[in-house]
Amino acid sequence: MSVQHTAGTSLILRLELENSIATFGQLAKTIGENGGDIVAVDLISATKTTAVRDMTVQAFDRAHGEQIVKELHALPGVKVVNVSDRTFLMHLGGKIEIHAKSPVKNRDDLSRVYTPDVARVCQAIHADPQKAYTLTIKRNTVAIVTDGTAVLGLGDIGAAASVPVMEGKAMLFKQFADVDAFPICLDTKDTEEIIRIVRALAPVFGGINLEDIGSPRCFEIEDRLREELDIPVFHDDQHGTAVVLLAGFLNAIKIVQKPIEAVRVVVTGIGAAGVACTKMLIAAGVKNIIGVDRNGIISNKNEYDNVAWDWYAKNTNPAGVTGSLADAIRDADVFIGLSGPGVLTVDHLKMMNRDPVVFAMANPTPEIEPEVAEPYVRVMATGRSDYPNQINNVLCFPGIFRGALDCRAAEINEPMKLAAARAIAAIVSDDELNENYIIPSVFNKRVAKAVSRAVVEAAIASGVARRERLDGNYTTTL
Amino acid sequence: MSVQHTAGTSLILRLELENSIATFGQLAKTIGENGGDIVAVDLISATKTTAVRDMTVQAFDRAHGEQIVKELHALPGVKVVNVSDRTFLMHLGGKIEIHAKSPVKNRDDLSRVYTPDVARVCQAIHADPQKAYTLTIKRNTVAIVTDGTAVLGLGDIGAAASVPVMEGKAMLFKQFADVDAFPICLDTKDTEEIIRIVRALAPVFGGINLEDIGSPRCFEIEDRLREELDIPVFHDDQHGTAVVLLAGFLNAIKIVQKPIEAVRVVVTGIGAAGVACTKMLIAAGVKNIIGVDRNGIISNKNEYDNVAWDWYAKNTNPAGVTGSLADAIRDADVFIGLSGPGVLTVDHLKMMNRDPVVFAMANPTPEIEPEVAEPYVRVMATGRSDYPNQINNVLCFPGIFRGALDCRAAEINEPMKLAAARAIAAIVSDDELNENYIIPSVFNKRVAKAVSRAVVEAAIASGVARRERLDGNYTTTL
Repeated sequence: MSVQHTAGTSLILRLELENSIATFGQLAKTIGENGGDIVAVDLISATKTTAVRDMTVQAFDRAHGEQIVKELHALPGVKVVNVSDRTFLMHLGGKIEIHAKSPVKNRDDLSRVYTPDVARVCQAIHADPQKAYTLTIKRNTVAIVTDGTAVLGLGDIGAAASVPVMEGKAMLFKQFADVDAFPICLDTKDTEEIIRIVRALAPVFGGINLEDIGSPRCFEIEDRLREELDIPVFHDDQHGTAVVLLAGFLNAIKIVQKPIEAVRVVVTGIGAAGVACTKMLIAAGVKNIIGVDRNGIISNKNEYDNVAWDWYAKNTNPAGVTGSLADAIRDADVFIGLSGPGVLTVDHLKMMNRDPVVFAMANPTPEIEPEVAEPYVRVMATGRSDYPNQINNVLCFPGIFRGALDCRAAEINEPMKLAAARAIAAIVSDDELNENYIIPSVFNKRVAKAVSRAVVEAAIASGVARRERLDGNYTTTL
Repeated sequence: MSVQHTAGTSLILRLELENSIATFGQLAKTIGENGGDIVAVDLISATKTTAVRDMTVQAFDRAHGEQIVKELHALPGVKVVNVSDRTFLMHLGGKIEIHAKSPVKNRDDLSRVYTPDVARVCQAIHADPQKAYTLTIKRNTVAIVTDGTAVLGLGDIGAAASVPVMEGKAMLFKQFADVDAFPICLDTKDTEEIIRIVRALAPVFGGINLEDIGSPRCFEIEDRLREELDIPVFHDDQHGTAVVLLAGFLNAIKIVQKPIEAVRVVVTGIGAAGVACTKMLIAAGVKNIIGVDRNGIISNKNEYDNVAWDWYAKNTNPAGVTGSLADAIRDADVFIGLSGPGVLTVDHLKMMNRDPVVFAMANPTPEIEPEVAEPYVRVMATGRSDYPNQINNVLCFPGIFRGALDCRAAEINEPMKLAAARAIAAIVSDDELNENYIIPSVFNKRVAKAVSRAVVEAAIASGVARRERLDGNYTTTL
């Protein structure tokens, strides 16, 4: 994966100077001549003959930063001890921490939160397991579970290397919806073992967010855990993506004024997310979806080993179209890409029905570059933050878990996901709605609240809520 | 277990009054006449005919609180909706939470802590797994792992009911040593499964604190995990107790002025903690220990199925004494009880050598009541907070893990535990040392610092430290 770098580059260079050979002036000159901006200088240590300094230098981009470092390397008497950038600095020591909700000030506090008095609380839960929801962190805590096999676009990088993503997700859970989430990154790829582990861990948690688990393992793991656990289990890569896509989809077809039942949709990339998006669209009322993967159109005229494709063949493509993307895309209203760069061409766009809608969500490079597509499409959305209409899971997962936890939902079901999608879509009012604004910003504070409220209502209506009082007023018996 | 209640009782009573029948004046009168103190009154809701109030009432103890509630129940027109006490209130919603170390203020932050830029951090760890220590929470995070089978004195109450203890422990980890600890409460009692789960979870954590796992399972789990993981694994019930006991022991024999090699020790209760304490005492230089369990003195003249007892028989009781506690205790210098109430009698004490030292650590009721023992012993310590000389694990686990994390110790070995014990003992200066002050208070802020410093030094000296720079100055390459 060629990683896209959107955040600019501020470097911190730790340099050791031999005083008799190199001067600070030479350093500054070299950095300046190469276009770097010195933002700050800190002396770290000094001896009679050497000095170690941290220099914060602003560069245009990463390559530029590397160029500056190279030039400094070449200076006699200068040793580049270390180079850090802001992204790495933000990760030092990790991004989350555990806080006690109250301090243990004295012996009285200690005897209540720990031995001996905590024993009474334990006994109360032992007598009535539902009390775990009032007397422990279960009420507000979600496990972010991964096996590190499908991390971002990086693939199978393992549990340890996946932790920064899960920590980032925990930050967003907290900031957007006050959900306490903790990374559970498992050093195993064994489906049965992952299921057993999550089942064993469940007592502490009020919900399970499965994340970046490779396909097809992710289906089996989610299905089995949903069956076996009485708390919500939600594979965000599938359902989070599907919910946010549907939100954008609902607003896009509003713009082109096409009724949902009549819309013809083509999906490329029939993996975990492609299947989940398709199911979500069907649940919302779309009747005509054609899926295309590497071997062409998925049709019930073929047979598939893959259980997911088998389901797909039986539940989509009502006209039994066969062939390639070019065959599928003719007269289509909406293209949904969850595949890879270059899949969609201008020729394809020209074959679509009037006012084409394109969701090109391959990351980091979309199925077609927005600049290239622009003249031929009415509405365009991607997974990227540097174009309008970003389809970003952050719009869904904090609010949907907030809602599920608030009403102690036993699961996150289809009505709850539909409600979440509609709530996200409705944040964009009819007055605001236009081709470049079909989906709210991830920083829109109304989103998580609207999603959680809608999710609670849908959970109650569909009978999976186990708690309907929402006044936050908990009491417990002595 | 009859739970000891040391914290006084402040009750919150939620009462519903029928206005036509009951008045607030009657309520107040009933509470007052029964010796309760009304601390606060809050109106929760009211209709034309009823009022719901929360009354905070101070009572002497739990029984007194129950008496007041009973009298209120008897009042016509009064319904006791709920009764909460302060301990339960402190547990509402759990005692710990997740915090982000920095807010995600804007798109730039989001792209660094999450997609797309977090991918570079993941790649750096993938390329060099040791970077997990600088770039994730691993550096400072400990799993508190239990299977809920030996929780406090409550026994096998299960994973869900054990959570409040582990949360309490996480609070103490944070407050005393700034360690981030998270409860991992496992709904399984299968030794192999627990080992597999902890192994799979390890990538996120810098250390494993095993807690309240029943014997003999705890031995196998700890031994195997120590072998298989490259992070410290520490069963606190064994080693935490042993470290703090040894600290008190060292100070006690200083008071009675007996050299450690000459001291004769009797241990009752040869379970996990008893064995660990014995090993610790041997490591510190004690030569003569006799263990006594239900079947009498453990001696190499007998054979044992139990692996732990087998070890015990081979490594203690050099004179091959047989019989009961009465036979063991004759001329003993120190009694260490990890057994149950009533095990030690005045007759036993009278048989001991001059200046008897007694550690009666059975919880909540010691092997002999301190008041009963007092006339016959020189130094007395218990596990209780309401007598002098409390042997409390809180003195050990925060500091020992702080030290192990700081130097990235691969394990917590014997020299580190010895160093921790000596550091705890040394907090009490020779000037301060006396029969009622052999061990510092759990609230003594110097303890965790002294322990962690001593542990780091011992880790370095014994070759298990993987990082010797302690200036907190981390940098990473671009």
